[in-house]
Amino acid sequence: MKKSSPLYGVKPQVIKVPAYTLRAYEADIKLNQNENPFDFPEDLKDETFRRYRERKWSRYPDFVPDSLRQHLAEFVGWHKDGVLVGNGSNELLQSTLMVLVKSGTRVAIPSPTFTVYGLISNVLGAKVVNIPLNPDMSYNVDELIFKSQECGAGVLIINTPNNPTGSVLKEEGLEEILKRFSGFVLLDEAYYEFWGHSGLQVLKDYPRLIITRTFSKAMGMAGLRVGYLLAHSDLAAQISKAKLPYNVNQFSLTAAEVALENIARFRPPIEAVLKERERLGRELSGIPGMKVYPSEANFFLVEVPVAPRVLFDEQYGQGILIRDVSSYPMLSKCLRISVGTQEENDRLLSALRASLTP
Amino acid sequence: MKKSSPLYGVKPQVIKVPAYTLRAYEADIKLNQNENPFDFPEDLKDETFRRYRERKWSRYPDFVPDSLRQHLAEFVGWHKDGVLVGNGSNELLQSTLMVLVKSGTRVAIPSPTFTVYGLISNVLGAKVVNIPLNPDMSYNVDELIFKSQECGAGVLIINTPNNPTGSVLKEEGLEEILKRFSGFVLLDEAYYEFWGHSGLQVLKDYPRLIITRTFSKAMGMAGLRVGYLLAHSDLAAQISKAKLPYNVNQFSLTAAEVALENIARFRPPIEAVLKERERLGRELSGIPGMKVYPSEANFFLVEVPVAPRVLFDEQYGQGILIRDVSSYPMLSKCLRISVGTQEENDRLLSALRASLTP
Repeated sequence: MKKSSPLYGVKPQVIKVPAYTLRAYEADIKLNQNENPFDFPEDLKDETFRRYRERKWSRYPDFVPDSLRQHLAEFVGWHKDGVLVGNGSNELLQSTLMVLVKSGTRVAIPSPTFTVYGLISNVLGAKVVNIPLNPDMSYNVDELIFKSQECGAGVLIINTPNNPTGSVLKEEGLEEILKRFSGFVLLDEAYYEFWGHSGLQVLKDYPRLIITRTFSKAMGMAGLRVGYLLAHSDLAAQISKAKLPYNVNQFSLTAAEVALENIARFRPPIEAVLKERERLGRELSGIPGMKVYPSEANFFLVEVPVAPRVLFDEQYGQGILIRDVSSYPMLSKCLRISVGTQEENDRLLSALRASLTP
Repeated sequence: MKKSSPLYGVKPQVIKVPAYTLRAYEADIKLNQNENPFDFPEDLKDETFRRYRERKWSRYPDFVPDSLRQHLAEFVGWHKDGVLVGNGSNELLQSTLMVLVKSGTRVAIPSPTFTVYGLISNVLGAKVVNIPLNPDMSYNVDELIFKSQECGAGVLIINTPNNPTGSVLKEEGLEEILKRFSGFVLLDEAYYEFWGHSGLQVLKDYPRLIITRTFSKAMGMAGLRVGYLLAHSDLAAQISKAKLPYNVNQFSLTAAEVALENIARFRPPIEAVLKERERLGRELSGIPGMKVYPSEANFFLVEVPVAPRVLFDEQYGQGILIRDVSSYPMLSKCLRISVGTQEENDRLLSALRASLTP
């Protein structure tokens, strides 16, 4: 690169990495981002506004949100020093990788999975080692351990339930990995509430396990960016060094406090999503030529009998937005569909049937 | 380190770096964080609440906040592709360093300055080269250029006005640096509105200049975490690869839009701070034994004739919180005092006089 270029001096691995982009689509029915179809409850919005009204916006948030950390610690049953709060769980993932990854560190990532893991790893100079899922999209535990050990991975990142496949890593598999793999295991549990199983059960036995979770999905707070991390307190202290001060804004902290204080209110919407997941999965499976992968999350990976882009466009033409994941490894015939409300799912099913019934 | 330690595998430079911490103090009068003493206007809070009420909290923010970028571009007079919005300007600083710094990259940083520059650089594996300010706390342009070139720095980070000294780098000095130094210059203009001069004037001529600004100070939005970056569009595109998707929450984006649409409302509070700065500087200089460094920001660095910690404690006992910066290089006799409202400054002055008048 020429010295006169504005990019001379930018790390080559950054220039090489493709940007993570998402075209902005507008649609009546949004089933493309695995969001909660049920919004944050209106009265809790009012309570959040009321409390935030009393704060000066001109003042910095608490340096560390100790009150929220304490509430989270009690809520999940972990100790406060091992709880970090971030600007979405992605920020905590980034902070974790910043303290673990240097140029050349091997980062093992099952594939296909959430794109951001590889993106951050590459920007930090890691060598990403992709480990394919089984053809049925399940995790191959032996392969994960073997490949991670073989390349000397410093970190193995596992999303469970996994985006975009919905597959899960069961507790036995996780323990097997933690016993036999010598690096850190970063377990992204963004969709945890739709499955109900967590690595937290074994965290005290395996201090090299790091768990991230989010308020974006089950808690209906994607717009507010709040995530949390659970880890051994010594490790959490190191990860917090890569977190910027005041990294979570005070409004979102307030909303998260309100949500935790009213946690029972968030259960019925989750139950409604789970009920719809069962119905939607069954109905989708009945559409000619469509293959539905089992999912423990709030979305389905489906293989379709026509070009995914064509089907995507047809649904979009009907005001329904789903996700074209056909550029992901192994998923050239696939789309991802979030579970919506009953009405949204009904409209989706009609539109898909109209497209696919011969 | 033992393989059984939970920290085995954490980057040594991270373990070595001290955490950036700030003890939580409560006080009636807060002059310790260079916040705006005038809050975000009440009617604009209402407008922000009103608009945010209409959004679903369960939906992700826009992938890239294009509308705010466009408004910022028009507001500052730069092109939209060269504008990035972040979760506070610190996040943009971090993203910038992530794409420029790899293990061993030299990062030149004047000293004393804002602690976070060195912290992020160290976490990323940089070798930080501190370049002392002149004894009167002014920037030594020749020394900055010479030392940065000598060590082969990839980046030189300059804060102007500088926290915690209030010193500024004038346009001639900046141009001299941009002409003679071959790395990137990251110019943090967090306190720009209290000085009125910006590197933006020369940005089009020097594509290796990167400017960050914030809504935290002059706009009274420290609690909401919104910052922006101005750079050559090619460079901005690379930096954005290290920014997480949806990195700014939708509530803060809404508040920033409201603020920009009502920008004239933010001028009188700034004028009030500037007027008080003049008065406070004059009055502080009249206190026996106190040396006040000239400041173009909304705070003063003062050298005091007693142990700074003792004076800090005495003011804190009176319900007034200032910042003890005596652990910073060159500042062993110093405190930092933010400019407050007239009443706050009056109470501070009385308390300081009571402490220091023999």
